[in-house]
Amino acid sequence: MVMASKLIGVIGAGMCDDSIATIAENVGREIAKRGAILICGGLGGVMQAAARGANKEGGTTIGILPGSRREDANPYIDIAILSAMGHARNAIIAQSSDALIAVNGEYGTLSEIALSLKMGKTVVVLESKWKIDGVIVAKDAREAVEIVFGKISVR
Amino acid sequence: MVMASKLIGVIGAGMCDDSIATIAENVGREIAKRGAILICGGLGGVMQAAARGANKEGGTTIGILPGSRREDANPYIDIAILSAMGHARNAIIAQSSDALIAVNGEYGTLSEIALSLKMGKTVVVLESKWKIDGVIVAKDAREAVEIVFGKISVR
Amino acid sequence: MVMASKLIGVIGAGMCDDSIATIAENVGREIAKRGAILICGGLGGVMQAAARGANKEGGTTIGILPGSRREDANPYIDIAILSAMGHARNAIIAQSSDALIAVNGEYGTLSEIALSLKMGKTVVVLESKWKIDGVIVAKDAREAVEIVFGKISVR
Amino acid sequence: MVMASKLIGVIGAGMCDDSIATIAENVGREIAKRGAILICGGLGGVMQAAARGANKEGGTTIGILPGSRREDANPYIDIAILSAMGHARNAIIAQSSDALIAVNGEYGTLSEIALSLKMGKTVVVLESKWKIDGVIVAKDAREAVEIVFGKISVR
Repeated sequence: MVMASKLIGVIGAGMCDDSIATIAENVGREIAKRGAILICGGLGGVMQAAARGANKEGGTTIGILPGSRREDANPYIDIAILSAMGHARNAIIAQSSDALIAVNGEYGTLSEIALSLKMGKTVVVLESKWKIDGVIVAKDAREAVEIVFGKISVR
Repeated sequence: MVMASKLIGVIGAGMCDDSIATIAENVGREIAKRGAILICGGLGGVMQAAARGANKEGGTTIGILPGSRREDANPYIDIAILSAMGHARNAIIAQSSDALIAVNGEYGTLSEIALSLKMGKTVVVLESKWKIDGVIVAKDAREAVEIVFGKISVR
Repeated sequence: MVMASKLIGVIGAGMCDDSIATIAENVGREIAKRGAILICGGLGGVMQAAARGANKEGGTTIGILPGSRREDANPYIDIAILSAMGHARNAIIAQSSDALIAVNGEYGTLSEIALSLKMGKTVVVLESKWKIDGVIVAKDAREAVEIVFGKISVR
Repeated sequence: MVMASKLIGVIGAGMCDDSIATIAENVGREIAKRGAILICGGLGGVMQAAARGANKEGGTTIGILPGSRREDANPYIDIAILSAMGHARNAIIAQSSDALIAVNGEYGTLSEIALSLKMGKTVVVLESKWKIDGVIVAKDAREAVEIVFGKISVR
C-alpha cells in the first residue's frame, strides 16, 4: 500500500537517444528514492527509461496509456491505466501529478507542459528545446527532482 | 512494486446503505486476498467500502476520480488518478479493468456495466436491480470474486 | 446559422435491420421538421438512418465520432466532431443533448441511456430490450419526438 | 445543411484586450466569408471575438465547451458541444479542425498548438509569444486565413 504518496509526472517523447534516456532513468531513480510514485504516459523512450529507473530503485510506476491494450505499456509499468482516449490522456497525467519533470520532448511533451502550467503545477524541464515562461530549468536529473520535492513539500 | 497484478474493477453508487456496504467491503477484501489491485471510481458508498475492504487486507487501491481534487478521494484510495472528465471516466475504469464486479448501483453503475460488456469484459453483479443479458449474477461477495478470478485466469 | 436550436440525441447500434432503420429514419425526420439539430455518434446503423431522415427534411446533423477520421462519419453527418476517445464520447453525446431518443440498441446504447439518466436528461426509448426505470417508452417515432419536445419546451 | 464544410479551429485565451479581440474577430469574419465552419472552445476572449466575427458574416460556429452548461457558451456559438472534460477538450478541438489559427494565447492555447502539431495539422499563429518550430507565422487575420485555406485545399 502506498497511501499518501506523491505522484511525480515524467513526460517526454516516445523515442529518444541514449543520452536523453540516461537522464530520464536518473530522474526515475531519484523519484523512487524519495518514496514518490512515478506517473507517465506508459510508452517507450523517456517514459520507459524513467519507469526503468524507478523500477530499479523499487519504486512504483503508473502509466496512463493512450490506447486500450495493456501490452502497449513498457515493461517497467506496474499499473497500466488504459485511457483509450489518445492525446486527451495528457490532461489526465498533468492533472494527476503533484509536479512534473519534462525531459527533452516533442510536441506531445509541449502540450503536457502547457496543460500542467495551465493547471498551476510546478514543471521542471531538462534539455528542453522551447523557452516557455513559467517552467523551471534544471541542469541535471538530481537537481530537477530536488526542485520538485522542494516545491511540493512546501504546500 | 506490483508488476503484473490484475486490476479488478468494483463499481457501485456513491451512496449506499449498510448492507450493500458490507457486501462491497467483502468484495474488496476478497480481491486483495487474491493479490489483485482494486480499481474504482474513488468516491464514497460502494467505492469507499470496497476500497476499505482491500485496504484492511493490505491490498492496493486505485481511484479514477471524476474531478480534479485528490481530497475528493475516499481515505482508502492509495493512488488517485484525477481524470477531471466527469462521467467519461467510467469508460477508463471499464477499459482498465481485467474484469468488473458491480454491487447494486444506480445509473452511473449501469453505464459502467454496459460499457464493460461492450468492451467484452466479464461483469459479475451482486444485488443488481436490472436484468442485463451478458452479466453473471453472483449470490455473495466470495462467489463474485471467485467467478471473476476463474474467468481472468483462463485468458 | 442555427442559434438557439435544441440538440436532440439519437442513440442506437452501429448496425441494425431494416425495420429499426425505418424507425430511426422517421425519428430523424421528425426532429428536423421541428427545427432541432440531431446529434448522434456519427457512425452506421441507427445513427446513419436517423441522420439520413434529418437530412431529407433539410435538418442539421452532428456526429460525435469515437475515432479521429472524418471519413468514418456516415454520409448524412453535416458536422463531424472527432473525439478520438472511443466509448468516452458517449458521455459527450449525453451531456450535449437536450433530450435523447434511443432506438433499439446494444450495450453502447445502454451505456448512453444510463449516462443520460444520470445527468437528469429525458430519455425516450423505442423498441428497447431493457427495462430501465426512468426512461419513457414510446410506441413510434412520432410519439417519441412529441414526448421529447413536450419535455424540453417546458424547461 | 452545411455538408462537406471545412472546420477551422480558432484558439486563444478566454480573456484578451481589444486589439487581440479585433484580430480574432477578423479571423472569424474571413473564415465565414470562405464558407468554412469555425470551431473553438466556446468561451470568452479570443473565442468570443472570433465567433462574433463569423456570426456577423452569417457563418456557423461550434463551441467545444470544457463544462456541462450551455449557458457558459458565448452568445455567438450556434452549436455548443458540452464535453464536461475540462482541458481534455482541447484535444477534441485540435482533432476536429482541418487547420487551426492561434491568436495570441496563454498556456491553454499553447497546449492546443502543440497537440495540433502532434496530429500533423497546419497551425498558423498571430501575435504568438512563443517560438515553436512547425507553426506558420502570419502578419494579420487575412493572411492567416489565406494560408490556412491554401493548405487545406491542396489536400
